[in-house]
Amino acid sequence: MDGGSTEMMIVMHEGSTPEEVERILERLESAGASGHVSTSDIVTVIAVTGERDVIAGLPLEAYPGVDKVLPILRPYKLVSREFRRSDTVITVGGTSLGGGHVALIAGPCSVETREQLLEAARAAKAAGATMLRGGAYKPRSSPYAFQGLGIEGLEILAEAREASGLPVVTELMDPRHLADVVAYSDIIQIGARNMQNFQLLAAVGEVDRPVLLKRGLAATIDELLMAAEYIVKGGNENVILCERGIRTFETATRNTLDISAVPILKQRSHLPVVVDPSHAAGKVELVEPLSLAAIAAGADGIMIEMHPTPETALSDGAQSLDPAQFERVAARIRDIVGWAGKTLG
Amino acid sequence: MDGGSTEMMIVMHEGSTPEEVERILERLESAGASGHVSTSDIVTVIAVTGERDVIAGLPLEAYPGVDKVLPILRPYKLVSREFRRSDTVITVGGTSLGGGHVALIAGPCSVETREQLLEAARAAKAAGATMLRGGAYKPRSSPYAFQGLGIEGLEILAEAREASGLPVVTELMDPRHLADVVAYSDIIQIGARNMQNFQLLAAVGEVDRPVLLKRGLAATIDELLMAAEYIVKGGNENVILCERGIRTFETATRNTLDISAVPILKQRSHLPVVVDPSHAAGKVELVEPLSLAAIAAGADGIMIEMHPTPETALSDGAQSLDPAQFERVAARIRDIVGWAGKTLG
Amino acid sequence: MDGGSTEMMIVMHEGSTPEEVERILERLESAGASGHVSTSDIVTVIAVTGERDVIAGLPLEAYPGVDKVLPILRPYKLVSREFRRSDTVITVGGTSLGGGHVALIAGPCSVETREQLLEAARAAKAAGATMLRGGAYKPRSSPYAFQGLGIEGLEILAEAREASGLPVVTELMDPRHLADVVAYSDIIQIGARNMQNFQLLAAVGEVDRPVLLKRGLAATIDELLMAAEYIVKGGNENVILCERGIRTFETATRNTLDISAVPILKQRSHLPVVVDPSHAAGKVELVEPLSLAAIAAGADGIMIEMHPTPETALSDGAQSLDPAQFERVAARIRDIVGWAGKTLG
Amino acid sequence: MDGGSTEMMIVMHEGSTPEEVERILERLESAGASGHVSTSDIVTVIAVTGERDVIAGLPLEAYPGVDKVLPILRPYKLVSREFRRSDTVITVGGTSLGGGHVALIAGPCSVETREQLLEAARAAKAAGATMLRGGAYKPRSSPYAFQGLGIEGLEILAEAREASGLPVVTELMDPRHLADVVAYSDIIQIGARNMQNFQLLAAVGEVDRPVLLKRGLAATIDELLMAAEYIVKGGNENVILCERGIRTFETATRNTLDISAVPILKQRSHLPVVVDPSHAAGKVELVEPLSLAAIAAGADGIMIEMHPTPETALSDGAQSLDPAQFERVAARIRDIVGWAGKTLG
Repeated sequence: MDGGSTEMMIVMHEGSTPEEVERILERLESAGASGHVSTSDIVTVIAVTGERDVIAGLPLEAYPGVDKVLPILRPYKLVSREFRRSDTVITVGGTSLGGGHVALIAGPCSVETREQLLEAARAAKAAGATMLRGGAYKPRSSPYAFQGLGIEGLEILAEAREASGLPVVTELMDPRHLADVVAYSDIIQIGARNMQNFQLLAAVGEVDRPVLLKRGLAATIDELLMAAEYIVKGGNENVILCERGIRTFETATRNTLDISAVPILKQRSHLPVVVDPSHAAGKVELVEPLSLAAIAAGADGIMIEMHPTPETALSDGAQSLDPAQFERVAARIRDIVGWAGKTLG
Repeated sequence: MDGGSTEMMIVMHEGSTPEEVERILERLESAGASGHVSTSDIVTVIAVTGERDVIAGLPLEAYPGVDKVLPILRPYKLVSREFRRSDTVITVGGTSLGGGHVALIAGPCSVETREQLLEAARAAKAAGATMLRGGAYKPRSSPYAFQGLGIEGLEILAEAREASGLPVVTELMDPRHLADVVAYSDIIQIGARNMQNFQLLAAVGEVDRPVLLKRGLAATIDELLMAAEYIVKGGNENVILCERGIRTFETATRNTLDISAVPILKQRSHLPVVVDPSHAAGKVELVEPLSLAAIAAGADGIMIEMHPTPETALSDGAQSLDPAQFERVAARIRDIVGWAGKTLG
Repeated sequence: MDGGSTEMMIVMHEGSTPEEVERILERLESAGASGHVSTSDIVTVIAVTGERDVIAGLPLEAYPGVDKVLPILRPYKLVSREFRRSDTVITVGGTSLGGGHVALIAGPCSVETREQLLEAARAAKAAGATMLRGGAYKPRSSPYAFQGLGIEGLEILAEAREASGLPVVTELMDPRHLADVVAYSDIIQIGARNMQNFQLLAAVGEVDRPVLLKRGLAATIDELLMAAEYIVKGGNENVILCERGIRTFETATRNTLDISAVPILKQRSHLPVVVDPSHAAGKVELVEPLSLAAIAAGADGIMIEMHPTPETALSDGAQSLDPAQFERVAARIRDIVGWAGKTLG
Repeated sequence: MDGGSTEMMIVMHEGSTPEEVERILERLESAGASGHVSTSDIVTVIAVTGERDVIAGLPLEAYPGVDKVLPILRPYKLVSREFRRSDTVITVGGTSLGGGHVALIAGPCSVETREQLLEAARAAKAAGATMLRGGAYKPRSSPYAFQGLGIEGLEILAEAREASGLPVVTELMDPRHLADVVAYSDIIQIGARNMQNFQLLAAVGEVDRPVLLKRGLAATIDELLMAAEYIVKGGNENVILCERGIRTFETATRNTLDISAVPILKQRSHLPVVVDPSHAAGKVELVEPLSLAAIAAGADGIMIEMHPTPETALSDGAQSLDPAQFERVAARIRDIVGWAGKTLG
């Protein structure tokens, strides 16, 4: 962002006056930027050149005579493919994600009991999962629903990691829990509802732990990348992007998996991309086709909800596979990962 | 839907009166249906049993005391998987679609000239496409844009079919053009903007030609199936469903390809499902990953825009592959079709 | 469209070559347009100047090296506020709409019987409505639902007009019914599902009857104006725009009334704007607050579903007011119309 | 939700077995709930009765044979209109909001300097505003944008309150700042991006300060009420709901103001409802029509961005009124508040 490039085009209203144009040019110059005016019989356009951070801070749309402001360059830098051409590869506990390595992350929505999680970890490992997931702090839309075991859940996760050898992914919801989550887990998950909890993003930007960042329900692809930029700007370069479905008018699925986000994120950014078909669809029977589609589209990982006994789950039971179902889906995933010329883990 | 089953639940407002409940029961009975009331201290629910067509016509939400009406059964019948368990397979000109046969449909958005279409047909055939597409009548959001060659375009399509041996898919926009489109083509396409043009659906329901029905930009999966039901109810059982992206807040793609629609449509209906990655994404570079994802998710066909020289295209140039690009994508599609245990055509 | 103005900006990819830029400039010139290049260290931008219709036809996004194409001017002309500064006022049967005159259009969703419509017309007139609505041809998502009385419904509408003195609005779904609808009604309605049925738009552009054009469920404001442009370009200048709710993720209402569309349409176009709170909300109790909000936001008319006995309605009963409810709402509307300094009719 | 009422209907798949139904009934009973089965030739439905909190925790959709689960009662209690029939009225610093009192909240997006805020407060007071807004902690999608003055901003807010006599609304983004925000302000704002930051909701539920809770960009009306339930359940009954636009496909406005949310929230809840037209529209010229529409629809308050010199604003300049514009809009708002039979403050 050094140097100064054409950052945006200001399109003036039809009836705008030369004085209005002049006022904008003066403001640009006083900020160290510059404007190049092109006028035709109907419309006047100002191409703005200068430092991005400076220009982004100018309220150009508020100036009299301005019709619209069209940004030209993307609003992020450190996470962009232009900034780093080669794929970021993240390695934890002997397993990798990105650059030809595909992660298969499995486990229950919530850590409920020691037995439940140890059994889940055993089943995940046996079926070929490369990482274990499980929530100790749970974001629930109802205050009456199970909110997670907290620190006790973290301890159980650490035990399951020990027993299975699988690295552990768990969600952080509050900056006050950061030290505990760092102490007990391998990858910190930021949930969809916290994708724009900027204080939380800043907090995880300062620790030495990979972050799995889920796309918000109504977040654009570029907003997801901006959220990742918050983390990387803080010093933590190990960010995993996660597509988990967006909110649309369609009610046949809980959310609409935006499969196009996979190739677009890979094109715009060097960060690895994981898909969560369980939350996207909200239905067990869609987990397999969506997992296969995600790998075919280029995803670097799949994150699946699996529970030893979904019928007794305290959260998300309807979308959790049981161990037998997971084993079948995992086999199909391994198969298509091979077809795609990649490897699991 | 003969016989009569529990079609819906009527949930009454908290303060509803016995008289209000009685009035509904009477209305149900006078229509030949019946209601079963269950009451608790907070809420009263009426389960409605009877003929679907009759019940669907009753304005039960308009009755005093009614809070909401929850439909229980799906609103379509002939196109449902329950109605016919086995996959519908559509065969035209020696090539099939559905039941393990995957169609690869390629060609330009619009028929522009004889030379353009013959060259497109030749390239499509050479790369392994099983059908040719091309529009003679074009729905354009601007009245100033190219609207298609009309009947002349149909004649060119017929010539290209002759020359290449590929069956031809073309769009019908107006019931007044039906006879011409039937005379010159093999499959009639109904575009996304006409998915709920019910007169047009009724018209194609009466002819002996397969119909490729595109999902509307804001149509739910069940509304797509209802539109297909219009056609099948008219007597035409050969309907192909086409997912081509829905409209969401995301602007990185022209539309958001709803990949989950593929397995859901296959689950709810016996009709074959085709995916159009070109219109969904609006970008050449997304055609390959989305095509592969579609096959992995279970699609019965892929429809791709390909133009001999995209730079001179009169419509949709930005999303059209050139013949060399198409050849590469077609090879990858053939590969994953094989992986999925199916065959092209 | 005359003369030639800066229509769009072409933004090149970072790594684009001078040859790629040159190729675009040549294409522009061969089409009678021209390009002005501005280059900085990161990005190259081409400002394109020329005739809109020509430039709109060029597939500039398909050229190698092009990152994106940013349109600058709006894509419509005849319906724009720039084309005509003064409000279009539409007068039928002695009542006006636009320019300070507010229409109150009321009546049932469907014409069901002669008695029903005559009673609705009488109640509408008595409560102060200025126009009568009623559908003879009904777009229904289910092929099993009531599809309207057709020509018989049109005859009943004409009788109700005679009896009440109210001009009649009715929907046209098929160009083959145009002559009948023109013969029997005063304003032709194009429904939301047909907003981009371009053949139908072209057909009503050629007759001498005002057209009430409803916004499609997923149509942008500019697409609505483009659809209106189709009609006006055909020679019919009397178009009424209708906001009736768009499809979003929210399920508390049938559709989400886009109230902002009212001031934006009035700003961008000289055409009058009507709001349909009945279809937007799908609930009787929202009709009053949404009607008042629409007038406060600047709407030129309100269209309300009213049925003599909503409980027996063959369609849309849940959102239809009964005559007593309508009388109360009409009084409130008259009151706020006065507050806004306008008059009913 | 004491007592136990019919909470949901479980609809079984067509081919479900008696054993599957039995298994569900047993699970319900072991949880202290009960099920009432009604069967017809096509479908079996189980009406579930019992304690809401218990039933909400059962993963009934995960049981074999279950097609769907239809909730019947709303998922919140303390904030519901059923729980408290009379409007909640919130009074701070001598001014009220709710129950016929309309608040007019004005001020800049961010506190930038002492002079800027004092001038804004003076202009707000002079034009008739009843409360002052201004952000000390700013959620910004870019990490490169101005993030607010923090504690210094809070001190300036307190000074402006002193000078103007207006109560102060300011945003809280992090539970670690809660004590400071409580110390310096009168109403705590929870921003749209934090609507489901459940830890933050729990934190403000424990303090004695009214909370203005903004609807998330993709939050349903019921999710907004659930978020409010979190706060009230914690002991803080003074919650103000704020509609500020939702994310849709329409790009003419920054967000789509969901005007229907106003009457629906008032119908479902006793809490007051405020509308923020500035963030909804993102455009100065829409602030007046949307403010008037909001009052006409029943809103209890309007929150408007106003800046002494919008052209120099560090955030949201394009949507901020200047003092002269605000004065005109405030006069119109006062006028329609009177028309509606309510009073400002």
